[in-house]
Amino acid sequence: MAGIGDDAAVWQPSRSHLSVITTDALIDGVHFDAAGMDARAVGHRAMAANLSDVAAMGARPVLATVALGVAAQTATEWILDCYRAMSALAGEYGAAIAGGDIVRAPALALSLTIVGEVSRSRLKLRSGGRSGDIVALTGPLGASRAGLELLRRPELAVDAADARAARAAFATPRPRVREGRWLAASSHVHALMDSSDGLSTDLARLAVASGCGAEIGRVAVHPAALAVARAAGHEPRTYALDGGEDFELIAAVAPRAFAHLAEGFERRFGTPLLAVGKLEREPGLRLREDDGAVRGLTPAGYDHFAGG
Amino acid sequence: MAGIGDDAAVWQPSRSHLSVITTDALIDGVHFDAAGMDARAVGHRAMAANLSDVAAMGARPVLATVALGVAAQTATEWILDCYRAMSALAGEYGAAIAGGDIVRAPALALSLTIVGEVSRSRLKLRSGGRSGDIVALTGPLGASRAGLELLRRPELAVDAADARAARAAFATPRPRVREGRWLAASSHVHALMDSSDGLSTDLARLAVASGCGAEIGRVAVHPAALAVARAAGHEPRTYALDGGEDFELIAAVAPRAFAHLAEGFERRFGTPLLAVGKLEREPGLRLREDDGAVRGLTPAGYDHFAGG
Repeated sequence: MAGIGDDAAVWQPSRSHLSVITTDALIDGVHFDAAGMDARAVGHRAMAANLSDVAAMGARPVLATVALGVAAQTATEWILDCYRAMSALAGEYGAAIAGGDIVRAPALALSLTIVGEVSRSRLKLRSGGRSGDIVALTGPLGASRAGLELLRRPELAVDAADARAARAAFATPRPRVREGRWLAASSHVHALMDSSDGLSTDLARLAVASGCGAEIGRVAVHPAALAVARAAGHEPRTYALDGGEDFELIAAVAPRAFAHLAEGFERRFGTPLLAVGKLEREPGLRLREDDGAVRGLTPAGYDHFAGG
Repeated sequence: MAGIGDDAAVWQPSRSHLSVITTDALIDGVHFDAAGMDARAVGHRAMAANLSDVAAMGARPVLATVALGVAAQTATEWILDCYRAMSALAGEYGAAIAGGDIVRAPALALSLTIVGEVSRSRLKLRSGGRSGDIVALTGPLGASRAGLELLRRPELAVDAADARAARAAFATPRPRVREGRWLAASSHVHALMDSSDGLSTDLARLAVASGCGAEIGRVAVHPAALAVARAAGHEPRTYALDGGEDFELIAAVAPRAFAHLAEGFERRFGTPLLAVGKLEREPGLRLREDDGAVRGLTPAGYDHFAGG
């Protein structure tokens, strides 16, 4: 690795693997609020979002580059804290920040690029899902949205443990890198992506890419999301369906293999692999209510270009 | 290549090569002026700067990712023109835009990342220079700085051909990808970097990285830079020494091999490889005047963090 300081960073890619690359940009005032957020949380979340994209391919992260646009009022300590958090999280998953650029900007802006590696047989795309596949999640959703709600309304009366879990899910989300690699090793996992823009939006994308529709039978709402949504007077399911930023993985799994896979998953990670629905031949996204009624669902998660 | 639309783009890296990666960020009002510049020029220059970094490693570009921050007032046509120019220039050198992100931002912001490949034997770093090496340039400098001057002061009385050359050097600079790969094939080329921040700044960096100092004996000023600087009442050499954005490559070449290498370069590219100075044991950067007097030179090119 030539590292930072030369015109480019250098590494030896694995000879037997494919390389993957993903980029995300985050802008102060659009994707985060530097005034109200810890620098470490901003760095952590940015890195988590990119690591999650790599995890969603079944790949392992190798290196990252960071382009940082810094406003005149940004303190050096803020920048260092942000970098340290990015570097620490990348390091936890075996990746390093290999280079970058730092420039003046009217508002704080972060652009991260991560390179990963995956063997050809383990590469998972969004498009591999098949009608009849069980839609599974690596964990329940909505806690990050709940954490945001607590940031906006700290006066909400919520149990301390739930508040802590929600705040942590928002500020220091865990990308499911190990879970992604584990799921990718199974040929019964047909498609994989992350739920970073909300289940309704991302499952709709997976279904479309796979030439299918999908029915959600059970919305897996995180207990902290349930508690905060109730205190806030919101419908808890919308936190899970439309909240986003949860970074759980969505997998399309062959139905006959699901029970065995879920058993192995729980043994390996200590948390259940949650079946939340299935892919169907009929296009579109549907929600099956507890009483059996099925209604159409409009994706209402994060639209990157609309910005909210 | 899975391409845009999945969580990450996928490619098969060459099994016999190293990979290189480089990132650059450009912000409207800091690095370019969207109001006064063509969208295609903005895209072209951003891509040229990154391709130049890859060229400076002796590598060939493979793929790029683009993160684009778009202001509310940015027209869709502007974005498309900018992308088209980036894509076209990358394509000229065999690379493709493989993915990216587009977000709202308070000001237009571009962040490009390029991945390239180079065989281990051809990889050139800044740090490989040796005392006694001839410092060579792939072309004369200062034309981009002259083009910027014409943009600011279009009333300057300059010959039409010089004005055209200066404007083109500023708006559509050519990264020296082929020249870089050609030079990198020679074991007599000890170090390589690009001159994007001005000769004084970048040669000082190369010399420091190589544990040397450097003396510039002949500042290779582009004819268009000479014409514009004179019309503007500026010292032409400062355009070449401190102007930046020229994207010529700086090579440190074993002195006994220089004549042969320069002959081959001119035969291959139709333009001379210019000897402009030499690396020396004594640290620091010096300029030898025509009368033989030697004076110390302070790097005064582009400092990315100072922003000007």
